[in-house]
Amino acid sequence: MIYLDNNATTKTDEKVLEEMLPYLKEEYANPSSMYDFAKKPAMAIQEARVKVRDFLGAKSEDEIYFTSCGSESANTAIKGALNCNKAKKHIITTKVEHPCVLNTYKEFERQGYKVDYIGVNSEGQLNLDELNEKVTKDTALVSVMWANNENGVINPVAEISEMVKAKSPETLMFVDGVQAAGKIPMDVKNTKIDFLGVSGHKFHAPKGIGALYAKSSARFVPLINGGHQERGMRPGTENVPYIVGIGKAAELAMDSMNYELTEVKRLRDKLEQGIIRNVFNARLNSSVKERVPNTTNIGFEYVEGELILLHLSDIGVCASSGSACTSGSLEPSHVLRAMGIPFTALHGSIRFSLSRFTKESEIDTVSEKLPSIMDKLTQISPFQDELSKLRELKR
Amino acid sequence: MIYLDNNATTKTDEKVLEEMLPYLKEEYANPSSMYDFAKKPAMAIQEARVKVRDFLGAKSEDEIYFTSCGSESANTAIKGALNCNKAKKHIITTKVEHPCVLNTYKEFERQGYKVDYIGVNSEGQLNLDELNEKVTKDTALVSVMWANNENGVINPVAEISEMVKAKSPETLMFVDGVQAAGKIPMDVKNTKIDFLGVSGHKFHAPKGIGALYAKSSARFVPLINGGHQERGMRPGTENVPYIVGIGKAAELAMDSMNYELTEVKRLRDKLEQGIIRNVFNARLNSSVKERVPNTTNIGFEYVEGELILLHLSDIGVCASSGSACTSGSLEPSHVLRAMGIPFTALHGSIRFSLSRFTKESEIDTVSEKLPSIMDKLTQISPFQDELSKLRELKR
Repeated sequence: MIYLDNNATTKTDEKVLEEMLPYLKEEYANPSSMYDFAKKPAMAIQEARVKVRDFLGAKSEDEIYFTSCGSESANTAIKGALNCNKAKKHIITTKVEHPCVLNTYKEFERQGYKVDYIGVNSEGQLNLDELNEKVTKDTALVSVMWANNENGVINPVAEISEMVKAKSPETLMFVDGVQAAGKIPMDVKNTKIDFLGVSGHKFHAPKGIGALYAKSSARFVPLINGGHQERGMRPGTENVPYIVGIGKAAELAMDSMNYELTEVKRLRDKLEQGIIRNVFNARLNSSVKERVPNTTNIGFEYVEGELILLHLSDIGVCASSGSACTSGSLEPSHVLRAMGIPFTALHGSIRFSLSRFTKESEIDTVSEKLPSIMDKLTQISPFQDELSKLRELKR
Repeated sequence: MIYLDNNATTKTDEKVLEEMLPYLKEEYANPSSMYDFAKKPAMAIQEARVKVRDFLGAKSEDEIYFTSCGSESANTAIKGALNCNKAKKHIITTKVEHPCVLNTYKEFERQGYKVDYIGVNSEGQLNLDELNEKVTKDTALVSVMWANNENGVINPVAEISEMVKAKSPETLMFVDGVQAAGKIPMDVKNTKIDFLGVSGHKFHAPKGIGALYAKSSARFVPLINGGHQERGMRPGTENVPYIVGIGKAAELAMDSMNYELTEVKRLRDKLEQGIIRNVFNARLNSSVKERVPNTTNIGFEYVEGELILLHLSDIGVCASSGSACTSGSLEPSHVLRAMGIPFTALHGSIRFSLSRFTKESEIDTVSEKLPSIMDKLTQISPFQDELSKLRELKR
């Protein structure tokens, strides 16, 4: 199997699992308990918190809250911040956010909030002027993802936070960092970001653990009411094994950041160029430099994406069209539509996302095998004239 | 170590971990993905859902939603039901609910809801007449725990659901089933309960997974907005390993229900009677028959609970005063206060909670060693006259 869908989820690193296992076995105490047996899990949580602090570049580990996933982190920050101060009813976000963010804002629209959705250009880059224009003293929250899950485009969130606060110091800023974490360095303390959410399973921790950074000055109310865990901001008995896991995954991600930025990028570029060179109906859906190093999104014109994925699956290659969270829907990706990708390529766009476990031989195999899959699929396409023209052009 | 704090958390059953491990290792696909690699985890989730359906006695597996913990299950049901129909602003609950329930109602009180808190008698039994009187057509929700975490008392939730619906058919009923699951049989389909929450780590699944039963007719809105997971009612990439784990734990709990009701109960009774017999200042905080088979709560008069726990911890015995979710607070337990436990025993009340892994030799050890601990502690108590009288009485 060749797994090129690391933006959907990643393999849990064996070293992560190894550190988790004692807490799934003999060290099972409830960390809130008073006896000695509970001290080790309680300490393990604090150690993980320090690792996640360093990973995100937070000032203090008290700014880190563990949650059950990226969606919970986003919902906690957005609902927690907006419900803490209901005077301002204006939100700014982007057209290309993840469903857990967009659907939360739809909820606030139903409650009477005004939400502005900022667009992107054909490369997936955010219209910063438009964003800046929309910010007023009445803006409660600005919400911009750090990196896009489908095209990998990086938004200049540090600059955006400066821009927002310069115009309206009280406006809060939430950043969905799920697709940036582990792929590019993060250093929130040197930004004006108030809230940042990440998800462990996107950087080799298991599915079911997330973290929320909330700057010490940023007030919010908890999404879940209950006990004193996470200083009352995220009640529920702590998932000690997974908290240990996200801590270790954060440590490993820091250790391999250089590899990510050089080797993973080299392999991604090799795959991207190989496909563009060898497949006549392939076009890159974003070629900007400001992309996370592991992601490429390629449109195969006049072919159905689901068919491509099926044929890739048959030869053991895992890739995706759109995000896993919207799969099952036949609607073309809202991200690619916002980029204005021509309809000829919209339905046949495939995301390949690598990780530090991707091997060069795997990349070579995909580059080699894609042309013959595409030959088969273009032969059954109803757009034979258009395909002939494309073939000519490419020669 | 002798672990008698199974109401705080339980050891993950080795068979549970064994079934989980493939999903923490090679079967790491995102279950929402389209390729073959994702089929096994997607099927594993459905199999776990069927097991939890059978465990709770639900009619359909479509009535089961996986969450990250018992607190999330309770918050989802309560907030989801109340926010789905905002016309009625009256809630009925009990004085002895878990903080995740009580603190959620405090939130609704702040929003203008009227909440009635039903009391209990000295044995911890709910005042059903008082509850029945309070129900009106304007009651939005009745919320009663199935079994209490501190004294183990079982509430007749099936009868209560009939009673509530007879008086007000539209009133919804939520049951916090966290402390009943795995200890007594559950069969929600033969009740009028609308929502039931459980937590995996209370019945030998790991910490960080819960389930919510919502009757097919019971409408609610999601707590977390996002993707299509759990039919849109609980977005976020599924925690496949833990979902498999809670499914297996549910299966094992059904298998060992008879052992729980007979052997665990026998050991609990032996411990309870042994302590009451051998420790002169011990009194049972509840002696009703309608108790879960694993729990006893014993007041040691004129002695500080924290001191008892410390001395127990020194000899490797884990027990607790109050719930883990309120530990760290010096306030005496709200449950024991609601029962009217005399202040002489309130501060020295200890909960012992067993599991199917508790050995008879462990019970014997605790019964043997407690008297000498109590001798030491009563010697330093400032209440020497009262203790002398007690000692006389017991002779």
